[in-house]
Amino acid sequence: MRIGFVGLGVMGAPMAQNLLGSGYALTVYNRTAARAAPLGVRGAIRAATLADVAVASDVVALMVTDAEAVHAVVDGADGLLAHMAAGTVIVDFSTIGPRATVELAQSASERGVVWMDAPVTGGDVGAKAGTLTIMVGGDEETFVTIRPLLQVVGERIVHVGPSGAGQSMKLVANLVSGLNLLAAAEGLRLAEAAGISLQVLSEVLPASSARSFEVDKLLERWPTRATAPGFSLANRTKDLGLALDMADALGFATVLARAAYPAFQQAVAAAGQDDETGVARHWDNTPRS
Amino acid sequence: MRIGFVGLGVMGAPMAQNLLGSGYALTVYNRTAARAAPLGVRGAIRAATLADVAVASDVVALMVTDAEAVHAVVDGADGLLAHMAAGTVIVDFSTIGPRATVELAQSASERGVVWMDAPVTGGDVGAKAGTLTIMVGGDEETFVTIRPLLQVVGERIVHVGPSGAGQSMKLVANLVSGLNLLAAAEGLRLAEAAGISLQVLSEVLPASSARSFEVDKLLERWPTRATAPGFSLANRTKDLGLALDMADALGFATVLARAAYPAFQQAVAAAGQDDETGVARHWDNTPRS
Repeated sequence: MRIGFVGLGVMGAPMAQNLLGSGYALTVYNRTAARAAPLGVRGAIRAATLADVAVASDVVALMVTDAEAVHAVVDGADGLLAHMAAGTVIVDFSTIGPRATVELAQSASERGVVWMDAPVTGGDVGAKAGTLTIMVGGDEETFVTIRPLLQVVGERIVHVGPSGAGQSMKLVANLVSGLNLLAAAEGLRLAEAAGISLQVLSEVLPASSARSFEVDKLLERWPTRATAPGFSLANRTKDLGLALDMADALGFATVLARAAYPAFQQAVAAAGQDDETGVARHWDNTPRS
Repeated sequence: MRIGFVGLGVMGAPMAQNLLGSGYALTVYNRTAARAAPLGVRGAIRAATLADVAVASDVVALMVTDAEAVHAVVDGADGLLAHMAAGTVIVDFSTIGPRATVELAQSASERGVVWMDAPVTGGDVGAKAGTLTIMVGGDEETFVTIRPLLQVVGERIVHVGPSGAGQSMKLVANLVSGLNLLAAAEGLRLAEAAGISLQVLSEVLPASSARSFEVDKLLERWPTRATAPGFSLANRTKDLGLALDMADALGFATVLARAAYPAFQQAVAAAGQDDETGVARHWDNTPRS
């Protein structure tokens, strides 16, 4: 199985690295070509164009920022779909939501290409370690075919349901983690206002019913005010917006996420490329006069 | 050190049991006297009145529902303070917030009694196992004196700061866990609306950045719609209200908790004595027409 990989950012590069390391023949492409260099050194073919990736691959993996970026590599005369053979597969690791996915799967299907959505959770740490959780939407037969490939980049591979279902699962997970992050931020800031030391917080919160992945992350990054992503505020906010779109489409109220969204938007306006935990700094929850 | 214990409910009874089991001389009192019977059988002295507990104890522990219940056992001619000797100590395990605590500590101090706030986290499971986390406010010297006693009922004993600081820490922890619970509820309900199975949710969420103590609890209790407390919706909501009071006193906005509070109030109105996870059922987040 010849693999193509498009999108070699913080997540994509280590995922491609792991595929290469496990012996897959890999053709890579990145808009900023320099990002492909380290993979080229290790034996990946560096494609000059998307068409080159398309013709060289049985399965093309995508890991880009958003739906717009996916359309940019898939659509048009220079895009992947125009050059992929019938019976090939696109595995989209990007987080773009179920609505865009269903549309793209339809376009792919018209060209005989199978679209599988496969968004991931676990961050850059999980991408490097190959321990991502992958939430897959699409037909069962193709899922079985691509599972060995997914098992190289992830540890827990879950077939959620039909096309778009992987995206829905991802948005739900990110809605919950985004709210957990903001909850941790609110608690930490309130505790600071009450004069409780970070040392006490670090001792108590992870040993209390307040414990969460996001509490641990915020406590770890708070002292250094780390700004290096990881997951950026802008992407965190994008995913929450997609979850609200999904809720709207289902006619679901999503009260808490709707209250949280303006706080994230405000933080993005202040410093969108900051690490996501920057929401605790940039969100205006300070004393009111 | 002779110990008194007032309040033998879901939390107090197993805590008193553990003190008795570790060899402390224990005098117990509960408004509903029958609750004291199992402890009497195991060798505790069952006091007929609060005055009897007061005169028989060097340290009186309280574990009751709220500030009103604490005042009911402490104040007045029949209350604890009227009968405790100078130099004795009250250890209040109840969650009543910093404001009420500072007032009670002042009243106690006027009678020569030292007040230590020592709210706990860990639930009935932690109370039985003696693995509670205890957040202590009050003077350092008394903290050192009562620490051996606390180590019998808890595993992690943290001196947070002066009088009321233990309560502040507890309210912060419960604010974060309450928000995490509502976030989990919102995610679970949205996922259901999107047709994602509970089996997939149970596989993905605990392995994602959405993982939290509250996600695990909700996933475990959701299939059976467990209504047996544990921690009741009414108490969960009371604690969130206390956290908002604390934030108000500090002039702190607490945006997310303020958005969550009406959802908890609504759920309490529907079924206040339900298990706290009932918020996921009783909170009106259903499709809007």
